[in-house]
Amino acid sequence: MITIDDIEAAAARIAGQVRRTPTLAADCLKEPLPVAADVILKLELLQATGSFKARGATNRLLATDPSVLAKGIVAASGGNHGLATARAGFLAGVPTTIYLPDNATPAKIEKLEAWGATTHIVGSAWHEANAAALDHVARTGAAYFHPFADPFVVAGQGTVALEILEDIPDVDVVLVAVGGGGLISGVGRAIKSRRPATRVIGVEAAGCPLLLRALEAGSNIGLDQVTTSVATMACAKTEDAIFETVRDTADGFVLVSDEEMLRAARWLWFEMGLAADLSGAAAIAALREGRVALADGETVCAIVCGAGPDALAAGEP
Amino acid sequence: MITIDDIEAAAARIAGQVRRTPTLAADCLKEPLPVAADVILKLELLQATGSFKARGATNRLLATDPSVLAKGIVAASGGNHGLATARAGFLAGVPTTIYLPDNATPAKIEKLEAWGATTHIVGSAWHEANAAALDHVARTGAAYFHPFADPFVVAGQGTVALEILEDIPDVDVVLVAVGGGGLISGVGRAIKSRRPATRVIGVEAAGCPLLLRALEAGSNIGLDQVTTSVATMACAKTEDAIFETVRDTADGFVLVSDEEMLRAARWLWFEMGLAADLSGAAAIAALREGRVALADGETVCAIVCGAGPDALAAGEP
Repeated sequence: MITIDDIEAAAARIAGQVRRTPTLAADCLKEPLPVAADVILKLELLQATGSFKARGATNRLLATDPSVLAKGIVAASGGNHGLATARAGFLAGVPTTIYLPDNATPAKIEKLEAWGATTHIVGSAWHEANAAALDHVARTGAAYFHPFADPFVVAGQGTVALEILEDIPDVDVVLVAVGGGGLISGVGRAIKSRRPATRVIGVEAAGCPLLLRALEAGSNIGLDQVTTSVATMACAKTEDAIFETVRDTADGFVLVSDEEMLRAARWLWFEMGLAADLSGAAAIAALREGRVALADGETVCAIVCGAGPDALAAGEP
Repeated sequence: MITIDDIEAAAARIAGQVRRTPTLAADCLKEPLPVAADVILKLELLQATGSFKARGATNRLLATDPSVLAKGIVAASGGNHGLATARAGFLAGVPTTIYLPDNATPAKIEKLEAWGATTHIVGSAWHEANAAALDHVARTGAAYFHPFADPFVVAGQGTVALEILEDIPDVDVVLVAVGGGGLISGVGRAIKSRRPATRVIGVEAAGCPLLLRALEAGSNIGLDQVTTSVATMACAKTEDAIFETVRDTADGFVLVSDEEMLRAARWLWFEMGLAADLSGAAAIAALREGRVALADGETVCAIVCGAGPDALAAGEP
């Protein structure tokens, strides 16, 4: 399992190669959030490539010997990790190939290609795309960037929490969207090492309650089915090290539906001018739906973790 | 003409009623800006209602006796001032009516209605919509919120410069998109009062070089025609007080085409995860096109002044 030292080393390694993103209070609202807490957004959707994933992939890249990269880089991703990996390949000057399940959004695929990646749609779930990615690695010898089962990736994602603690030193609760658990395990480890009283709450898609069910079961069980349409939050099984880190550091999990995330994304666009993808809106959905237990006057940081045009398409808010 | 005292009074008046927006360095780019300067974005598109206009309209609102508002509020606007005025009406609990020219974008109209405003499309240029707004005022006695010919509005817009100076105390150049000149006259007055060495550069639509031509002529002449399709930057004539403030405080004007603004908006979306409207992308367009004379190592603040879905619509970047 990763330690705070790994996260601090990651922060030093990726400094200048990823953005120091700002925070913004969610105030001056037409439709206030139904909580008596102060809500501050960590604008990680403004990160390079549009999500926190640039932190982990860049840490992975910079920790890898260049000779290992010569045959290219491969990843399987619902979108954001793929974009971050494509940028890693761009930085290293090597070809990148991204395998995606067929529920990845057209916007993510278009952006992957703008970063210079070759894309392949394989299967309807991440593990199917990942099997194709591993096959590609076996065939070509390319370097494989796992979206979460990689301590360098998790440590990179954890650096976002160091910035949150710098900007909001008295933060009481951090809300984190969850797919495979890479972000929440990095954030959890950083927060519990630096400010144990702060609660770390995961927000999962109701159609993919992976870590909630695993924690209930007390072991890293997977899900029989994943029904969310949000590719960036769809993962049927995580790695044991992620499960253990989450078990040791997270304070709870809540669920939000795909529709609740879409409404939250529309709220973010209307109220804040932020174009979040659905996972980026998950933490706000949890607040809007009253899923997070908060005491009056607490300070909550919601990580708006990814950008996307999802809320800007035509449709009723 | 407004003074720095007016701007400081506005900042005190509107504190808590508008957002303190963050800044963000434009670094970690795939396609770097072709300048040897450090570029920092003032994220005013994350302001309430999606633009800096909330500052001016809120200052106007709070400086107005409530009895004057009883018959409602009226404005003419290409979009962003209308949204800010609609929010002012929402805050005051009075009906708001916004007149728009027919080049206002559907996104702005939809958002105006979500803020509770009644909208009317009149004419194809701002002055035609404004004539209808003034007629409405004569007919109903409603309070009229001018988008720029109002010292309270200009002073409100100028508060963005106080925040820029707080966050970037060594800023060398501030780039400001220009429509009627309300923003640049407020920003110019604030900057020249507080840090005269900082240059204030206006960015106008090539199809509406209003202040550039007026400064060349040495008097507040209007334009015979306005050909930009960017409604938020279309204004055929400004107010004498605006002209005089700009003449005394701005260091230069540059022009960008509508297409250059669209490409800059797409750059902002791809590179920074920011969904700017075309006026919001104008300052970046000026940098991308090499229109701004900069010395190596200077620090430039580009005000990304408005949000919009313009760059996220389908089309080639």
